[in-house]
Amino acid sequence: MTTKPTKTLVGNIDKDILAYTAGRDVELDVSLIEADCMGSAAHVVMLSQMPLKPALISKSQENKIIKALVSIMRQTRKGTFKIRLADQDVHLAVEQTLTQQLGDIGKKIHTGRSRNDQVALDLRLYAKDQLLATLEGVACCVDALLSFAKKQVAMPMVGRTHMQPAMPSSVGLWASSFAEGLFDDMALLINAYEFNDQSPLGSAAGYGVPLPIDRELVSHLLGFSRPCHNVLYASNSRGKIESIILSAMSQVMLTLSRWAQDMILYTMPEFNYFVLPKAFCTGSSMMPQKNNPDALELMRAKASKVQGHALSVYDLIKGLPSGYQRDLQEAKEPFLEGIHITRTSLSVCHKIVRGLTVNKKALLKGFTAEVFATDRAIECVAEGMPFRDAYDYVKTHIDELKDMDPYEAIAKKQHLGATAGLDFPTYKKRLKEAHAFVREERKAFNKAISKVLGVAYPDL
Amino acid sequence: MTTKPTKTLVGNIDKDILAYTAGRDVELDVSLIEADCMGSAAHVVMLSQMPLKPALISKSQENKIIKALVSIMRQTRKGTFKIRLADQDVHLAVEQTLTQQLGDIGKKIHTGRSRNDQVALDLRLYAKDQLLATLEGVACCVDALLSFAKKQVAMPMVGRTHMQPAMPSSVGLWASSFAEGLFDDMALLINAYEFNDQSPLGSAAGYGVPLPIDRELVSHLLGFSRPCHNVLYASNSRGKIESIILSAMSQVMLTLSRWAQDMILYTMPEFNYFVLPKAFCTGSSMMPQKNNPDALELMRAKASKVQGHALSVYDLIKGLPSGYQRDLQEAKEPFLEGIHITRTSLSVCHKIVRGLTVNKKALLKGFTAEVFATDRAIECVAEGMPFRDAYDYVKTHIDELKDMDPYEAIAKKQHLGATAGLDFPTYKKRLKEAHAFVREERKAFNKAISKVLGVAYPDL
Amino acid sequence: MTTKPTKTLVGNIDKDILAYTAGRDVELDVSLIEADCMGSAAHVVMLSQMPLKPALISKSQENKIIKALVSIMRQTRKGTFKIRLADQDVHLAVEQTLTQQLGDIGKKIHTGRSRNDQVALDLRLYAKDQLLATLEGVACCVDALLSFAKKQVAMPMVGRTHMQPAMPSSVGLWASSFAEGLFDDMALLINAYEFNDQSPLGSAAGYGVPLPIDRELVSHLLGFSRPCHNVLYASNSRGKIESIILSAMSQVMLTLSRWAQDMILYTMPEFNYFVLPKAFCTGSSMMPQKNNPDALELMRAKASKVQGHALSVYDLIKGLPSGYQRDLQEAKEPFLEGIHITRTSLSVCHKIVRGLTVNKKALLKGFTAEVFATDRAIECVAEGMPFRDAYDYVKTHIDELKDMDPYEAIAKKQHLGATAGLDFPTYKKRLKEAHAFVREERKAFNKAISKVLGVAYPDL
Amino acid sequence: MTTKPTKTLVGNIDKDILAYTAGRDVELDVSLIEADCMGSAAHVVMLSQMPLKPALISKSQENKIIKALVSIMRQTRKGTFKIRLADQDVHLAVEQTLTQQLGDIGKKIHTGRSRNDQVALDLRLYAKDQLLATLEGVACCVDALLSFAKKQVAMPMVGRTHMQPAMPSSVGLWASSFAEGLFDDMALLINAYEFNDQSPLGSAAGYGVPLPIDRELVSHLLGFSRPCHNVLYASNSRGKIESIILSAMSQVMLTLSRWAQDMILYTMPEFNYFVLPKAFCTGSSMMPQKNNPDALELMRAKASKVQGHALSVYDLIKGLPSGYQRDLQEAKEPFLEGIHITRTSLSVCHKIVRGLTVNKKALLKGFTAEVFATDRAIECVAEGMPFRDAYDYVKTHIDELKDMDPYEAIAKKQHLGATAGLDFPTYKKRLKEAHAFVREERKAFNKAISKVLGVAYPDL
Repeated sequence: MTTKPTKTLVGNIDKDILAYTAGRDVELDVSLIEADCMGSAAHVVMLSQMPLKPALISKSQENKIIKALVSIMRQTRKGTFKIRLADQDVHLAVEQTLTQQLGDIGKKIHTGRSRNDQVALDLRLYAKDQLLATLEGVACCVDALLSFAKKQVAMPMVGRTHMQPAMPSSVGLWASSFAEGLFDDMALLINAYEFNDQSPLGSAAGYGVPLPIDRELVSHLLGFSRPCHNVLYASNSRGKIESIILSAMSQVMLTLSRWAQDMILYTMPEFNYFVLPKAFCTGSSMMPQKNNPDALELMRAKASKVQGHALSVYDLIKGLPSGYQRDLQEAKEPFLEGIHITRTSLSVCHKIVRGLTVNKKALLKGFTAEVFATDRAIECVAEGMPFRDAYDYVKTHIDELKDMDPYEAIAKKQHLGATAGLDFPTYKKRLKEAHAFVREERKAFNKAISKVLGVAYPDL
Repeated sequence: MTTKPTKTLVGNIDKDILAYTAGRDVELDVSLIEADCMGSAAHVVMLSQMPLKPALISKSQENKIIKALVSIMRQTRKGTFKIRLADQDVHLAVEQTLTQQLGDIGKKIHTGRSRNDQVALDLRLYAKDQLLATLEGVACCVDALLSFAKKQVAMPMVGRTHMQPAMPSSVGLWASSFAEGLFDDMALLINAYEFNDQSPLGSAAGYGVPLPIDRELVSHLLGFSRPCHNVLYASNSRGKIESIILSAMSQVMLTLSRWAQDMILYTMPEFNYFVLPKAFCTGSSMMPQKNNPDALELMRAKASKVQGHALSVYDLIKGLPSGYQRDLQEAKEPFLEGIHITRTSLSVCHKIVRGLTVNKKALLKGFTAEVFATDRAIECVAEGMPFRDAYDYVKTHIDELKDMDPYEAIAKKQHLGATAGLDFPTYKKRLKEAHAFVREERKAFNKAISKVLGVAYPDL
Repeated sequence: MTTKPTKTLVGNIDKDILAYTAGRDVELDVSLIEADCMGSAAHVVMLSQMPLKPALISKSQENKIIKALVSIMRQTRKGTFKIRLADQDVHLAVEQTLTQQLGDIGKKIHTGRSRNDQVALDLRLYAKDQLLATLEGVACCVDALLSFAKKQVAMPMVGRTHMQPAMPSSVGLWASSFAEGLFDDMALLINAYEFNDQSPLGSAAGYGVPLPIDRELVSHLLGFSRPCHNVLYASNSRGKIESIILSAMSQVMLTLSRWAQDMILYTMPEFNYFVLPKAFCTGSSMMPQKNNPDALELMRAKASKVQGHALSVYDLIKGLPSGYQRDLQEAKEPFLEGIHITRTSLSVCHKIVRGLTVNKKALLKGFTAEVFATDRAIECVAEGMPFRDAYDYVKTHIDELKDMDPYEAIAKKQHLGATAGLDFPTYKKRLKEAHAFVREERKAFNKAISKVLGVAYPDL
Repeated sequence: MTTKPTKTLVGNIDKDILAYTAGRDVELDVSLIEADCMGSAAHVVMLSQMPLKPALISKSQENKIIKALVSIMRQTRKGTFKIRLADQDVHLAVEQTLTQQLGDIGKKIHTGRSRNDQVALDLRLYAKDQLLATLEGVACCVDALLSFAKKQVAMPMVGRTHMQPAMPSSVGLWASSFAEGLFDDMALLINAYEFNDQSPLGSAAGYGVPLPIDRELVSHLLGFSRPCHNVLYASNSRGKIESIILSAMSQVMLTLSRWAQDMILYTMPEFNYFVLPKAFCTGSSMMPQKNNPDALELMRAKASKVQGHALSVYDLIKGLPSGYQRDLQEAKEPFLEGIHITRTSLSVCHKIVRGLTVNKKALLKGFTAEVFATDRAIECVAEGMPFRDAYDYVKTHIDELKDMDPYEAIAKKQHLGATAGLDFPTYKKRLKEAHAFVREERKAFNKAISKVLGVAYPDL
């Protein structure tokens, strides 16, 4: 008996067509349940305050609905709230539950909105949380890399260009170069965060509604910095937001992939500069002696995955006419996947950096006479020799350099950002600021949501 | 007690690293269980025939193992065979099961192979089946499109360039153009099929084994046309095969996406050339009057998904050093997904073409005077007027064309491949050949597998 | 005689290998000559102030070099300065010219830098100018779109979802939605601008130099906000910067491609909402009646080109080991091309928006009864009817809506961002801020460069 | 005076719009002049045989036109035939020239065709030549790789997985693995060749013409195996053909990029397995000791470029409505570029393989005890020990393997495709077949074109 209403809502849609159109939504939307409930709560508060006589929703109805929404959130955390195939998606699953529990009151909740702006909202709320978590992940990696770099700041390491030995460098310069790359990536993530920080609710199907809804109130209730203005753009920005966020994620992965490639290279026995804990390596089913850096290889590959996801999203919106198109649903999976890959890759990077040990002997072994050639030529120039002459002289007297001291060589480069000129205090300050940003944003968001739900969030 | 051995095999790998490296394998590998069992059966037959004294595996041991493998295949179909997280992947799951059931005999099965060539084999066996199924899917769409085209061969439809009305055309020409596109796609799929039709087994970790294994026998037993020759290339071709197959799939999706775009356009009320069955459309949660072609929009978008997957695979192998790298594992998910998307899109296309109706009135309404301009100019040329003069004359006398008959116009173009020159018998012959190809390949494969398993395949 | 030295510098490199490695540099580097001269001027100023005794470069030598550099810049503008194949690239072309003119003094200029940090600098200086110009281009489009939107704010237009008629909307809402999209794109461009605004000079080959160079001075002289810190990251950020900038460009193109798609659709005779000036259309060599929107089709396609370029750059750096790799050279062409495509597309968009006329009759013709259904249902709800009942009622009484007034319908939606709630003054304020940003940045840059060159820049 | 007519043809198109729409066609179309002339010659022959009274073109007019076309081809080779901006593209440039020389006769040539099928034809003729040349390039690389492999078949080289030493292998196995990869790539190129080998001419603007044209005759005259059938598909296949060809090119680049990566790795001084001739390396402007493998790095990067081009083409046609769209013009540049990159990369690969020398001492140095572990374990199995026991035994007795002989190790693996089981005669046979394919196709094509032009082609 109870399944009948669902059937009516699904309508007389062909089963195969339904399966094709629902796609993996039933599964993916689990990630969006909490966001959907928050958004519905704020929407209900706004509806109850809308200047209509009689009020569309009374204060006590509002309370009942919000209580029911909080209960759904709690069930979700326990794993007892399910989205059924017949629900198609999270929005109908929540609405059905409210209607079953509250009858006609539940039906009112969809007034003045559309599934279009609902899913747009859910994705932005979800993205907000994930972007902050990703920033935390990046900050942890930066922290680990800088600690490692500081400890190894005086440890010589051959600097390379074209993968060939080039000039004296240090483990500290190497490690902190990735930290600085990740700082740049954080700026991209924060920029994407600010883009995302606009509430689409009230755009409905992209053309607004003939009701005196208060879009700024909803935006404020949900802790957004502002609403998207133009309602059609609120709709058109779906897909674009995902594309911008995935683009930022792919830059994080770019940094990690290059670090992973260095790690794979320098843990080869021919280099052996770095040693991975055995617990981070995998063996072979066939080769008894193997200790493979699988996690690093996968990290290198996963950058291509995130890029593939970013591309899918871009291409499916490129050239779409304006207004909602169902194509946008296909952006959901690559979006969720791309974020997930980036976050787990950051965790693994963090773990590996913290477990890394350095092989001093192997690092020093790399310092052949050639590695000192350029420094020597430049010193000749400083002593007054024309550069071309110095260049030619050194080229033909390489052997004279074979006893040079790598420690001295890296101690000599004292200018800004060189081996002996790294400014760790400034790095640390930037890191602190990043942590503070995440903390403040989380705090403000939790405060807003706690207020709208009437219970402490995120504890519930 | 029984879980201990698994733990030893997993080794002392860090839990997070393990989760990162296992990825979605436990879930995805379910698709590969049958292939893994077939491959193991053929490998065991070969091992038992290997000229060693004493034989590595006796004939009766061979029989026991194959029986156990068939039993796993049957359990898989019933859903009772599970890959556990501790197994990491399908290969260890199968091996563990054999060892538990058969003790030391089960352990022998991994002799002379590596998980590297095992997964390479599984993917090729899986791809073989999927490519044939995709070919069937394409052939069904072609069949439906040609039936539709034949029925509507004399139904006028405005032909467009730049999306603007251009010249008289027909529904038959329009529909059969996609059929011809799909014929070209079939040739790509068959080409990918032939690439794939090489057995990698015996390449082990990419460097062969110091045992007198018979790679040609295994290849023959599994119904492959031949083994890959160079064992290192057998290993390096992983990823490449997936890339080539996804590339073929993406061409199918390209054809479908353009058909879907036309369908979306021509079912807009402003055109209304074609009418979709209501059961193939979806409504709106907010707009009572809506009938949206969601399945077609998703098809248009899914081409981007397959392209994204193809790109991921290409990019993760580009520039990889030779020999197996763990990066290749990341090719599995986009590969399986890309095939799945293509196959379901073909089913939906087939269903829609068969359900399509044509709106004669709307089609004729499109024939304004301008549409006849070019044909008229060309006719003037045929009557002796220089083209430039004809062009100018028609341009200034468009109104004279307003009573021209669209039916006559499309009946006049009789040359090869034009509205009145379509050669359906030849199309039909090509279609028949495609069906025959699939049928013969399936038959030969089933025969080979039935022989190696000792039971009728695919029934089991 | 004069060509001999060049030959020595080229060394004994195989002709074909040289052609392959030089690629299109000789041609592409023309865009970088001015930047290269500016960078060299600042570098020389820094060298002359470096605390070495005797000074590496005297004040009068500095003046001579800078004068020669200004002269090269002037020749470049006249088209008389050439990069020859033997020069390989802009850096050697400039250095050779200085050496020919100034002898040994010219040779000193390369002290303490490498072609690696030189090209990194040139690209950043070039990007700075281009990003500001792109921002100007975007601002002009926004301006045109907003003017158009304001003028057409009360002009009804059918709003669509799934390309199907959905709800009453307006030309004003439609046009300003793209303006708002471009505002978001401007934020991305500004973010990319800030990334780019770091001087890499002094990183040399990525490992610094054993000289007391002053990287902050150079950065300041060239108007950068700061130097990149870590010298290895300065090197590794090449490619990454290009990737980030192309990513921002591709978002601009995404907005333009969707606008172009709408324009192509709505200029089809079946819609005819908008009319393009004839001078913006192209005819057909064969069809006398044609007026095709080629520029818009190309704009739609060019988004794919920019995305292709962005992808090339990303993929060629993904997984590269750290330190300079020659692969990075391949980032130059897609980078320059991607920017060029975006800028010319913005110009064309601007021109078309300004030339656009609106067809009132055609726009009103789209308003069938169905278009009013949702608004009517929502009004019933506001009057107290439960939404589901209202939805069902309207669905079965669509005919009652056929005389509704589109003008009234769009006047009724007064909430924030809806057809009657667009906030043009705020849009205008944001636009003004964008213009001010570009103006201030240009002013500061020109001031810095004028100082370092000793002549007024950009006039020279 | 003479420029006036051009102005009329360009029409009153806005200058900027014209520049945007013409793009780089004037420059790129130089590659298509010969193809355009061939196509026009065949078209004229067909027109003169068309059953109209009076004949549209007389036999003597046909001769005059063809003579003029041959003259244009000859001028093109001398560099004296120019496409001017006012011509827009190659088609109008050729037509203008004919009209200037022959008056009204020249104007007749455009009867029964459109620029749409003309450019489609030109691209297919161009692609035919380029695909054969690419096949030749691949065959040369295969030849060089196999010669090298055969010479080094007994030279030990550590085989790697996960970039870590794995098992004994040989230089011969390594080199021939790439040859086998290129054989697979040749099959893809041949498949693309067969796709391409269909004449689109006579499809006109995609809807045929009301004239008794003979599309099979034109196809035959130009040496195609058959015409595309459906005229709308002939039009829709543009872009698709380019996409399929670029996809094949990108697979060639994939193989080359992995070879290049191995080469870069193994020429690092830490390995030093292979030595590049100095003339193939480049030095550094700053580091006297450097010998960098720039060409190989660029080859690795160029795979990303070709992939980027392939992506651009795919994405710009994905979801396009059927019928010609101007978007397709944007496929031209990536198409020409992608082919060019692949062909030059093949030349460079060929040159490097032929110049490569092997460092025996360095290769042997890699054979630590661990490398023999797997082989030893497998031998224990062959002697009767269970694999797991053998695996464990070897793992704990690695030291016992330190004196094993690499030469013996690779001589022992004699099964198909292993170090001592490589079948060079079969490889050679396949190579011969590839050469024969190219030769036969060229011969047939030249014969056809010579006949249609009335002069020996390609000599002219």
